[in-house]
Amino acid sequence: MAGAAAAVSRRAATLLLSSRCRRPTNPISPLIPTVRAMNRRFLCSSSVSASTAEPTEAAGQLGDTVKEFRKRLRIEELKGGPDEGLSWVGKGLTVRGWVRTCRVQSSVTFIEVNDGSCLSNMQCVMTSDVEGYDQIESGAVTTGASVLIDGTVVPSQGAKQKIELKVTQLVVIGRSDPTSYPIQKKRVTREFLRSIAHLRPRTNTFSAVTRVRNALAYATHKFFQENGFVWVSSPIITASDCEGAGEQFCVTTMIQNDNFTVSKIPATKDGKIDWSQDFFGKPAFLTVSGQLNGETYACALSDIYTFGPTFRAENSNTSRHLAEFWMIEPELAFADLNDDMACATAYLQYVVKYVLENCKEDMEFFNTWIEKGIINRLNDVVEKSFVQLSYSDAIDLLIKSKKKFEFPVKWGLDLQSEHERYITEQAFGGSPVIIRDYPKEIKAFYMRQNDDAKTVAAMDLLVPRVGELIGGSQREERLDYLEARLEELNLNKEIYWWYLDLRRFGSVPHAGFGLGFERLVQFATGIDNIRDVIPFPRTPGSADF
Amino acid sequence: MAGAAAAVSRRAATLLLSSRCRRPTNPISPLIPTVRAMNRRFLCSSSVSASTAEPTEAAGQLGDTVKEFRKRLRIEELKGGPDEGLSWVGKGLTVRGWVRTCRVQSSVTFIEVNDGSCLSNMQCVMTSDVEGYDQIESGAVTTGASVLIDGTVVPSQGAKQKIELKVTQLVVIGRSDPTSYPIQKKRVTREFLRSIAHLRPRTNTFSAVTRVRNALAYATHKFFQENGFVWVSSPIITASDCEGAGEQFCVTTMIQNDNFTVSKIPATKDGKIDWSQDFFGKPAFLTVSGQLNGETYACALSDIYTFGPTFRAENSNTSRHLAEFWMIEPELAFADLNDDMACATAYLQYVVKYVLENCKEDMEFFNTWIEKGIINRLNDVVEKSFVQLSYSDAIDLLIKSKKKFEFPVKWGLDLQSEHERYITEQAFGGSPVIIRDYPKEIKAFYMRQNDDAKTVAAMDLLVPRVGELIGGSQREERLDYLEARLEELNLNKEIYWWYLDLRRFGSVPHAGFGLGFERLVQFATGIDNIRDVIPFPRTPGSADF
Repeated sequence: MAGAAAAVSRRAATLLLSSRCRRPTNPISPLIPTVRAMNRRFLCSSSVSASTAEPTEAAGQLGDTVKEFRKRLRIEELKGGPDEGLSWVGKGLTVRGWVRTCRVQSSVTFIEVNDGSCLSNMQCVMTSDVEGYDQIESGAVTTGASVLIDGTVVPSQGAKQKIELKVTQLVVIGRSDPTSYPIQKKRVTREFLRSIAHLRPRTNTFSAVTRVRNALAYATHKFFQENGFVWVSSPIITASDCEGAGEQFCVTTMIQNDNFTVSKIPATKDGKIDWSQDFFGKPAFLTVSGQLNGETYACALSDIYTFGPTFRAENSNTSRHLAEFWMIEPELAFADLNDDMACATAYLQYVVKYVLENCKEDMEFFNTWIEKGIINRLNDVVEKSFVQLSYSDAIDLLIKSKKKFEFPVKWGLDLQSEHERYITEQAFGGSPVIIRDYPKEIKAFYMRQNDDAKTVAAMDLLVPRVGELIGGSQREERLDYLEARLEELNLNKEIYWWYLDLRRFGSVPHAGFGLGFERLVQFATGIDNIRDVIPFPRTPGSADF
Repeated sequence: MAGAAAAVSRRAATLLLSSRCRRPTNPISPLIPTVRAMNRRFLCSSSVSASTAEPTEAAGQLGDTVKEFRKRLRIEELKGGPDEGLSWVGKGLTVRGWVRTCRVQSSVTFIEVNDGSCLSNMQCVMTSDVEGYDQIESGAVTTGASVLIDGTVVPSQGAKQKIELKVTQLVVIGRSDPTSYPIQKKRVTREFLRSIAHLRPRTNTFSAVTRVRNALAYATHKFFQENGFVWVSSPIITASDCEGAGEQFCVTTMIQNDNFTVSKIPATKDGKIDWSQDFFGKPAFLTVSGQLNGETYACALSDIYTFGPTFRAENSNTSRHLAEFWMIEPELAFADLNDDMACATAYLQYVVKYVLENCKEDMEFFNTWIEKGIINRLNDVVEKSFVQLSYSDAIDLLIKSKKKFEFPVKWGLDLQSEHERYITEQAFGGSPVIIRDYPKEIKAFYMRQNDDAKTVAAMDLLVPRVGELIGGSQREERLDYLEARLEELNLNKEIYWWYLDLRRFGSVPHAGFGLGFERLVQFATGIDNIRDVIPFPRTPGSADF
C-alpha cells in the first residue's frame, strides 16, 4: 500500500489501498524534486490532484471544482482511543512524521515515528527485504528526518504499546544531518532550547506544552461561549492614556530601520518629538490591559470576554515575567464581586477539568517528568470548593501563624508571594483561596469602594505554587465616587471621558477579572519558567524569531 | 416577585419567586448607593452573598466557600427558541437591561428593554398602579437608562412578538440624560458613531456585528480544533527581519511620553540610534504575519493555526484597510496546494454555515437593512462547489471577455479588484473562485516554484463584493530552491537561518493560507467599511479609546 492513507479519514483508507505509487527516483535526497511529477497523494494529505477534477459548468471549459477537505489521520487517533489502536490491527495505512529513533538490530529495524499529534510514536518494524531498506543502510533514517512509511497494523510484542506498524515501504522525505541537528536524544537544557525556539516544539516537553496550551485556550473559549459571553477584541495599539504609561512600549513609524539617524526624527522648535508627524498623530502605546475597553462592551452586550496579547515594558528578567503575554479578561454586567468570584472559580475548574480529560497522555508526562503529583493537585482544583476570605481576615491569619516572614505582616501592606503561598499551601492545605476586599490604597482606581470606605471590592485568586493566578474586582459604577477617586489620585478626568460616559449613561453594577494565560499554562503543566510555556518568549534583550 | 430571576438559570427561577426585596430607598438616583446594604441579588446575577455562606472546615472559622456560578438568563434564551418564548407564559421573571424606548399611552406604558444578547427587546407593559411608576412620571425611564423590571410573562397582543412582560415592579438602576445621551432613536451616521466607539455597541447594527464577529471567531476555533489543528500564538513583537520592514511599526522603550525631547534618545557617536539601549537590544517591530513562525510549529506538530492581531503601517485611508487587524493563518504539514485549497474552502463554508445557523436574527437584520440578498449570497457559499482555475486561464478569460478594464490585462500583471470582481461576479455568477499558480514575480519568496519555473503554487480565494478573502500557498520546502530564490531577490540568507533550518532538518511539503478576519466579518455582514467591523479601529491619525 502506498500513498495517502495516513492523511485521509478512516472511511477512505480502504479505497486507497490500491492506489500504489512508484518509489520516487531519488528517495534519499534531502528533498524530492520530482514530487510534483508524481501522484500528489504520495506525499500530501488530500487525495485528488487538480488535473483529474471535473470541470464545472459555470465557465464552460474553464475551472475545476475544489476537492473535499479531509482531516488527516493522526497517530493520536490511531493510538489514543481506549483500545490503544487494537481495532486497527490488520489494516493498511501510511504514517507521515519525523523519526525519533532508529534502532537497527540483526534481523529487524525499529523506527519510532512521531507526527506531533501526541507524545506516542508509531513503532515501525522493518525487515531488510522491504522496499526502501537501502535508506536505512545509507544512514538516511536519522533523528529528525521526515519519513513516509506504509505498512500494516499488527499487535505489538513490546510492553510499551498495543500496536505497531509492519513496514511495507519506507521513503525518506527530508533528511536531517545527525552531526548538525541540534535536537538529539541526549538531554539538552531548556536554556539551550530557548535559543532554538523554532525547533524546540519537536521535543516531548515542548510539544506537550503546546498541546496543553491549545487545550486551555480552546476550553477558555468554550466556557465563555457556553455561558453566553461574547468575545471582544480589545485594541492592541492605544493612544488613550488611561492605562498610565511608564511600563508601556511606544509604537511609532518615525523610526524606520536599524540604521536610523536620531536627528531625522521629526521635532518641534523646542526639540520635543513632533507627534503630529507620527502615524497616529499622537503618542501611541501597546496595551497593558483590555479591561477598560472590555467594560464598554459589557455595558452594551452584558457579558463579554477578551483573549488577546498584552504587553509590559518591565525590565524584569525573572522566570515569572514576559514583555508579551496573553490575557483573558471577562467582564460581567449586572454582577457584583460574588458573581465575579463565582465566575472565576467556575472558569478555572472548567478549563482544568478539560485538560485533565483531553490531555491525559501529556498530563501523565508532566506528572512523571516535570512535577510529581500535578495530576492530584489539579484534581483538587476541580473537586474542592474554593475558599474565600477577606484581606483583613487573611492578615489576622498571617499574624496568628507566628511565622517569620521576610516582609512583616501589617494591615495595609500588599501580600507578598511568601504570604500567598503560606495561605494556600499551609493554612488551607493546597486549596485555591480567594482573598477579597483589599485596602483601596494598594488597588486600582476603578475598583468599587466598599461601605467601610477603607477597602475596595477586589479579589485575588491564589493557587499553590503559582500564587496569584487571577485578579479581579467589581468596578466603581457610581459616577461621583469614581470622579472623586480620580481626583484623589491626581488623575486627569478629561482623559477618562469615555470611561466615565459608561457611568453617565445607563450605568450598571459590573465586575470582571484578568488572568495571565501563560501563568495558567504554568499552573497546568508544572513548567517553572514562563519562557517555556509560550512559543516565542519576549523578554528584555530578546525578541528573536 | 423581585430580585435576581433574570440572572439565574431556569431551574433556579422558581426558588427565587419568594425572595422578595424591598424597593431601594432612592430608585431614581443615577445609581443606588445603598445597593451593597440590600440583598445582593437585587441587582446582581448570582444568588448568595458571601456573608450567608457556610464557613469551611479548612481554616476553622476563617473562610467561606465560593458560590456556584450560574449563567444569566438572557432575552435571547427567552425569545430565541422555536416557540419564541411561549413556554415561558405564566412564569415570573426579572429582566435587566437598557431602555430602548418608553412609550407612555393613556392606560398603559410600553418599555422596550434590550440586554445585548440579541436584537429583540423584551416588551414590558406597565400600568400606572405598578410599583415604580413614579419613575416613569419623573422622566427617569429614558433611552439608554439601565433598568431592572420584574413581571410575569404573558402572550403579546402585538404582531411583532409572541410574548411580553406584564410589569410588577420597575427600578431604574442608572439614568441616561436624554439631552446629552448621543445615541437617540433618530438615525446617526456611522462616521459619528466611530467617534463614540465606546457607545456604538449599544446600537442594533453594532451589537449585531459584534455577535456575528464573535460567532465567526468561535466557528474558526471549532473548525480547526475539530480537524486536529493546534492553536499557536505567533509573536506580536519581533526583532526578526524576515518580514521586511517599511510598512512595520517600530516598538521601543526609548521614547517614553508625549513630552519627550528628541535629544534624549540614546545615540551612537555617529548620530545613529543606539539600539543596544532599547528594551530588546535591537530594533523591534510589530508583526505583519505569523506565517513563518507558524511554519516552525507545523514542522513539529503537523497542523496548526494562528489567530491573533497583525499590523500594517500603511498610510491608506480607505474603507478596506486597518493598521491593526486580526489574522487567521493555518499551516498544514504533508500538504500541497490542493490540500490548501480544500482546507480554505471547507473552512469558509464551515464558518459561514455556522453564522447562518447561529445568528439567524442578526442575519435577517443585515439582509433587511445592510445588504439585501446577503443570506442568499452566503447560502451560495455554503452550497456551491468552489471553482479553481490557474492564473493563466484567468488571464485568458479576462482577455476573451473583451471588457474594458482600467488596468489592461496581460500575463504577469497582478490582478486588480476590477478583474477579481469580474471573475467571481460575472464569469462565475457569484460563486467563490480560487485562482492558482501565479507568476513568481508577483508573489512572495517562500512560495513553492512550479515545474514550469515561471509560476509558484500560490492561490487566492476571491468572493463576490469583497474580492480577495484568502491568500495562500504551498511553501518552498526544497532548501536549494529556497536559497536560490533568496539570492535572486537579494535577501540576506543569514537573517533567515531559522526558517531555512526547517528545510535542513526533516523538511516536509507544507502549505497554508492567511485570512484577514475583518474582511471575513465584512463578507458575512455586508458592512461596507472595515472600521465598522472591529471594536476600536486603528487607522492613520486614529488610535483613540
